[in-house]
Amino acid sequence: MSKRVRMGMVGGGEGAFIGAIHRMAAALDGEIELVAGCFSSDPARGRATAARLGLPADRAYASYRDLVLGEAARPAGERMEFVSVVTPNDLHLPAATEALRGGFHVLSDKPAARSLEETISLRAVVHETGLVYGLTHTYAAYPMVRQAREMVCGGELGAVRRVTVAYPQGWLASADDAGGKQASWRTDPARSGESGCFADIGTHAHNLVEFVTGSRITEVCADLRSVVDGRLLDDDGAALFRLENSARGTLTASQVCAGEGNNLSISVYGEKGALSWQQEDPNRLQLRRRGGPLETYVAGADCAYLAPEARALCRTPQGHPEGYIEAFANIYRDFADRVRRARTGEPADASGASGGIEAGVRGMAFVRGALESSRNHSSWVSLRPLWEEPATD
Amino acid sequence: MSKRVRMGMVGGGEGAFIGAIHRMAAALDGEIELVAGCFSSDPARGRATAARLGLPADRAYASYRDLVLGEAARPAGERMEFVSVVTPNDLHLPAATEALRGGFHVLSDKPAARSLEETISLRAVVHETGLVYGLTHTYAAYPMVRQAREMVCGGELGAVRRVTVAYPQGWLASADDAGGKQASWRTDPARSGESGCFADIGTHAHNLVEFVTGSRITEVCADLRSVVDGRLLDDDGAALFRLENSARGTLTASQVCAGEGNNLSISVYGEKGALSWQQEDPNRLQLRRRGGPLETYVAGADCAYLAPEARALCRTPQGHPEGYIEAFANIYRDFADRVRRARTGEPADASGASGGIEAGVRGMAFVRGALESSRNHSSWVSLRPLWEEPATD
Amino acid sequence: MSKRVRMGMVGGGEGAFIGAIHRMAAALDGEIELVAGCFSSDPARGRATAARLGLPADRAYASYRDLVLGEAARPAGERMEFVSVVTPNDLHLPAATEALRGGFHVLSDKPAARSLEETISLRAVVHETGLVYGLTHTYAAYPMVRQAREMVCGGELGAVRRVTVAYPQGWLASADDAGGKQASWRTDPARSGESGCFADIGTHAHNLVEFVTGSRITEVCADLRSVVDGRLLDDDGAALFRLENSARGTLTASQVCAGEGNNLSISVYGEKGALSWQQEDPNRLQLRRRGGPLETYVAGADCAYLAPEARALCRTPQGHPEGYIEAFANIYRDFADRVRRARTGEPADASGASGGIEAGVRGMAFVRGALESSRNHSSWVSLRPLWEEPATD
Amino acid sequence: MSKRVRMGMVGGGEGAFIGAIHRMAAALDGEIELVAGCFSSDPARGRATAARLGLPADRAYASYRDLVLGEAARPAGERMEFVSVVTPNDLHLPAATEALRGGFHVLSDKPAARSLEETISLRAVVHETGLVYGLTHTYAAYPMVRQAREMVCGGELGAVRRVTVAYPQGWLASADDAGGKQASWRTDPARSGESGCFADIGTHAHNLVEFVTGSRITEVCADLRSVVDGRLLDDDGAALFRLENSARGTLTASQVCAGEGNNLSISVYGEKGALSWQQEDPNRLQLRRRGGPLETYVAGADCAYLAPEARALCRTPQGHPEGYIEAFANIYRDFADRVRRARTGEPADASGASGGIEAGVRGMAFVRGALESSRNHSSWVSLRPLWEEPATD
Repeated sequence: MSKRVRMGMVGGGEGAFIGAIHRMAAALDGEIELVAGCFSSDPARGRATAARLGLPADRAYASYRDLVLGEAARPAGERMEFVSVVTPNDLHLPAATEALRGGFHVLSDKPAARSLEETISLRAVVHETGLVYGLTHTYAAYPMVRQAREMVCGGELGAVRRVTVAYPQGWLASADDAGGKQASWRTDPARSGESGCFADIGTHAHNLVEFVTGSRITEVCADLRSVVDGRLLDDDGAALFRLENSARGTLTASQVCAGEGNNLSISVYGEKGALSWQQEDPNRLQLRRRGGPLETYVAGADCAYLAPEARALCRTPQGHPEGYIEAFANIYRDFADRVRRARTGEPADASGASGGIEAGVRGMAFVRGALESSRNHSSWVSLRPLWEEPATD
Repeated sequence: MSKRVRMGMVGGGEGAFIGAIHRMAAALDGEIELVAGCFSSDPARGRATAARLGLPADRAYASYRDLVLGEAARPAGERMEFVSVVTPNDLHLPAATEALRGGFHVLSDKPAARSLEETISLRAVVHETGLVYGLTHTYAAYPMVRQAREMVCGGELGAVRRVTVAYPQGWLASADDAGGKQASWRTDPARSGESGCFADIGTHAHNLVEFVTGSRITEVCADLRSVVDGRLLDDDGAALFRLENSARGTLTASQVCAGEGNNLSISVYGEKGALSWQQEDPNRLQLRRRGGPLETYVAGADCAYLAPEARALCRTPQGHPEGYIEAFANIYRDFADRVRRARTGEPADASGASGGIEAGVRGMAFVRGALESSRNHSSWVSLRPLWEEPATD
Repeated sequence: MSKRVRMGMVGGGEGAFIGAIHRMAAALDGEIELVAGCFSSDPARGRATAARLGLPADRAYASYRDLVLGEAARPAGERMEFVSVVTPNDLHLPAATEALRGGFHVLSDKPAARSLEETISLRAVVHETGLVYGLTHTYAAYPMVRQAREMVCGGELGAVRRVTVAYPQGWLASADDAGGKQASWRTDPARSGESGCFADIGTHAHNLVEFVTGSRITEVCADLRSVVDGRLLDDDGAALFRLENSARGTLTASQVCAGEGNNLSISVYGEKGALSWQQEDPNRLQLRRRGGPLETYVAGADCAYLAPEARALCRTPQGHPEGYIEAFANIYRDFADRVRRARTGEPADASGASGGIEAGVRGMAFVRGALESSRNHSSWVSLRPLWEEPATD
Repeated sequence: MSKRVRMGMVGGGEGAFIGAIHRMAAALDGEIELVAGCFSSDPARGRATAARLGLPADRAYASYRDLVLGEAARPAGERMEFVSVVTPNDLHLPAATEALRGGFHVLSDKPAARSLEETISLRAVVHETGLVYGLTHTYAAYPMVRQAREMVCGGELGAVRRVTVAYPQGWLASADDAGGKQASWRTDPARSGESGCFADIGTHAHNLVEFVTGSRITEVCADLRSVVDGRLLDDDGAALFRLENSARGTLTASQVCAGEGNNLSISVYGEKGALSWQQEDPNRLQLRRRGGPLETYVAGADCAYLAPEARALCRTPQGHPEGYIEAFANIYRDFADRVRRARTGEPADASGASGGIEAGVRGMAFVRGALESSRNHSSWVSLRPLWEEPATD
């Protein structure tokens, strides 16, 4: 069977920034072929996108239900093998559920669903179908974040004591900014869910902490609010947190920091040294070892001093920078690999480099915990009971 | 009368890092003359230091009480005019009190005293004597921190929404590190007071937030702890806080982050832009204006685009870096200026660029509030009642 | 006709780093389809590569001649439209010539050929056939390099006075390093031509200077040498140069700087300000305006303050870094656009963003001039007579 | 005898930036006492400066001749021990000669004199008197430059292959800029000598190369010019050079790069790694070892991994930045130490950390060579015959 994996897409029509990124990421390594899609809730617009992408008209579907049914009816060697869900948040759950129940693997934009309960119900479907499910926690797929994980989990810092993660953005800094397509649904509770900023980017920060430390956040004490007049969901907040491994930390997420782009950063402090990484300068990872010079690890497929897991995520030799699209492509490449293994009946590793459904549930448990804490004068909320809660529907 | 101001010093004998810094800072601009001192609790060692510094033997005193009495007995044009207190924390209060009651102005290392109550009692003495009292909040004296203050208070960021301040150090990362002279008293409750890390460096972070924003921290929700086995005081902690101006923020202070030097940093996010400053790169201030390029303001006496208040703190033209000692010297230069004005009966501005007794009281109120919050499951604590509390002795 | 442009490839078999980069760059935007290729001088290996890439066996050719003949024999709507030449230098000329004479547009890795004479002869073929010819001067395709060009040519720096360009690499630092596939032909005169380092990366530096300043280098005074024992071509050198616009500069290119990756940088100094750009941090462009703060222009499709020409080269919003592969993809996207315009008979702009044959000729004239100068005790050599020289074969 | 060394100063009156820096540098460590001076060619202004500095009126002299005679007439334990010469260039030679002949050690601002011949004649006086002579090559006195020297000379880079040094400044970018006190004499041949920019800052760059590599520049090929209309001396130039140790390099020095402050930088490339240092970020030294992460050495008196020679130049622990004034103070502290050793008849090491007369002669030989080369179509000029030339007057 061909090495190429066949993909269908839900969402990602004209004007959707993230849909185009998903397609570039899927195309980059030549391992994935886009064969079908339902690109818009407006069928005519969806067909136009399909045509522009060179898809035959009969594989441009009017709904995700049609996509699943239509592709399922095609011969095995031709039909799509997985669905990439790149819609606004409210459709993540129904589209993913439909695809999984129809027998297709799913790679979904995050968050997995609008709420903790929805995500838990999705977890049940994933477990029941046994199919591959992935979430695009993009930042965990950068080579130097992987390097950080290998170093922290490998004990290079000794016991972790403190973690600082911050994610200031500025694109929702004023009511005027909220006019675009993306902004409108992100600030609408019916489409985004119960949280705005913390669900949208707080989950990235949460995932980054857990991915790099290899430990889970078990308690949160948060202070969230909505800064811009008339906004119904949180657009700014911060939290204290505690990890299983006894480390403590702070997490800041805000979308009203005018002037900021996408300034995610993390620092991990241990008993033997400290690591720092900034998403806007992603090819460098700084390590301060006790009593030594500052070390900067630089991405590169030829950097023998990097962990093999990090090098495997590099396409270029040292000094040829890679970026956000390549990180995204790492998720797609990894997902394609898992789909290929599933072809032959190999067990699909549910976690994946990009985070699977369990990471998704924990992310939404974190959001729920932060909201609860914030409503209760920043009292500490335990997260484990939330993520261990059985599905309710 | 000479422009030169005459200084006596309490503390700062051999092996005391900060004493040497104080002397360099006082000497740099040629406006202050060290004329007397009590450099050590061991009189022989104190005399040795005095000799090395070129002081006559009869002005090397055995105690701060002797210093005050001895100098008071000298002719007005010869005796010291102010006392610089650079001892461990437990002597800040008695030495400063003795000096003030003896008629001498006081410039003290921070914190002002070991506890909130002590600091409040010192405030009463300052008010009673009407003398000049200053605290060496060094970081507020960097030119680019002053520039940040001018820009934030001048409205360049619009309403401030969020402040992030972090102060990781590594020098108390293990029990072994705690053997040195400085470390030993800093981790001893009897000498340091009720808090370790938050009193030592958390107060710097607190002061920086208030100085740059021109607003006061009124509420705190904190999580402090002692990480290193056997340590009796906090060595690591973080807090959420709220400012009078409705902005919110996080403050991290830790002395167990192995590998870190003195990595104080602050970011201020407003509705029109964001400012960032890092103490380890002090001559640069980054401004991200909404919709514009990143701007880096660089220190320099000749930089016409800087605020006059910031330029006045520069000694060199652009491209000739200044540092920590010069920031310290800015405090001394400002203090000398206030002492000269006091000679002629001009009112001594109690605040000063370096922070006066009120900043000291608020700093200790912050420490007290953080300790209380931490003991009460990180509940929010209001700080205003603490700093407004009348003196108790 | 489809928007997609059909590409054939010469070179780029297993183990060829740059071939894989070309394919990723071509695939990224979904505008180019790889339909045929001759990937190796060893037909069996070439077929294996073709199979891995999902090409049908009958479009895996044994030689570039077969590729041209075989594709020319296919129907117009199916055959390749252009050839991407990614071989070692010695095949650039014959493969490009064959393709052009066979009626196919050509996008070639640089340098255009092994020598100035060869490049001039290629120029004649390009002019004669009237087809589109492009060279992958990758660095000129970064958004912030384009921004630099717009600013310099738009007069933001005033008259340019000085240019500093440096390109230290370390991968040929020792004889041991020269064992790999790439290194071996790059240090072999028969395959690389008369120059090593200056032809390989000096031409990139030369192109960058001319692209950013919009001016041509007309004189060179150089000092080249071979540092590593036994190496037959220059691996290290530097030059003084003069530009048409009366600016002067220095160019350093070396492949024996152990520890360096791909550290190309350029600074342009004018009467009103200075610009700096570093390839290893490609999304930032620093502008020092006289009397103002340092400004850092950051890449982003949504950065309204950037020149439209620079924004058009961005795929992501501010804060989502792009890199080397995206710069390469910009060349492919631009080339595809030119091919599409050629379909309808629009004149093919010979220069292109990536540099066309004229840039290639000037680059080789620069290499020739530098070699001549170096052989003549670094005497000044005029370059215009070299690049204006008519073809000799 | 007191540890304090007594200093007289020639030059440095009101408005002279560098005079104030010299005084701060001398004062910082408390080892030098300013006891006398001739601060201005205008006696009234000179006396005013002396008064402001707290000097008695009878030690404010009207000329450097009076200073030397007047101090020589004082008792040995009271009279100045060395003269600091901080005048415009034209007075360096006569003031230093007068002082040396009068029996006083001399620390002089650079260049040592206006021309190579003058400097050679000064060398004769230094040799003849056997007194301590130092030049304020400030940049060589930064701790991390010293660290670089220790590492390069200790073989950490292996054989040095290439050196790149650049020194762009902007303060003479236009004729308007040339109005200030400093600028006026610096662009006047009668006062500055035969070269402007190369004598003023090219000599710093030259010294930095020789200091860091421990090798001497023996050949130069240069291209100098005067950019600003009406200027009589070079204000911009670049050179290729060769070192004794067979390394080659480029040196750029320009004072017409608008927007630049004092952007001196050096990179040294060897067979095992590369070092980079930038004066505007002086506490960091970057080391790229072949096959390892980028290492950043950070200044700090407590950094055990630094060379002892570098640590000895630090006053603060890691993370407390020092700067330009401290580098200057390192020169003064070292000079004071040499003066103290001379008191007891120890031989005065003529080189010194700050560079002695031999470094001064080689610097002026470099300037002469660059001027000659530039006049002769950038032909190579050998420098050894120039610096070995016997004094001509």
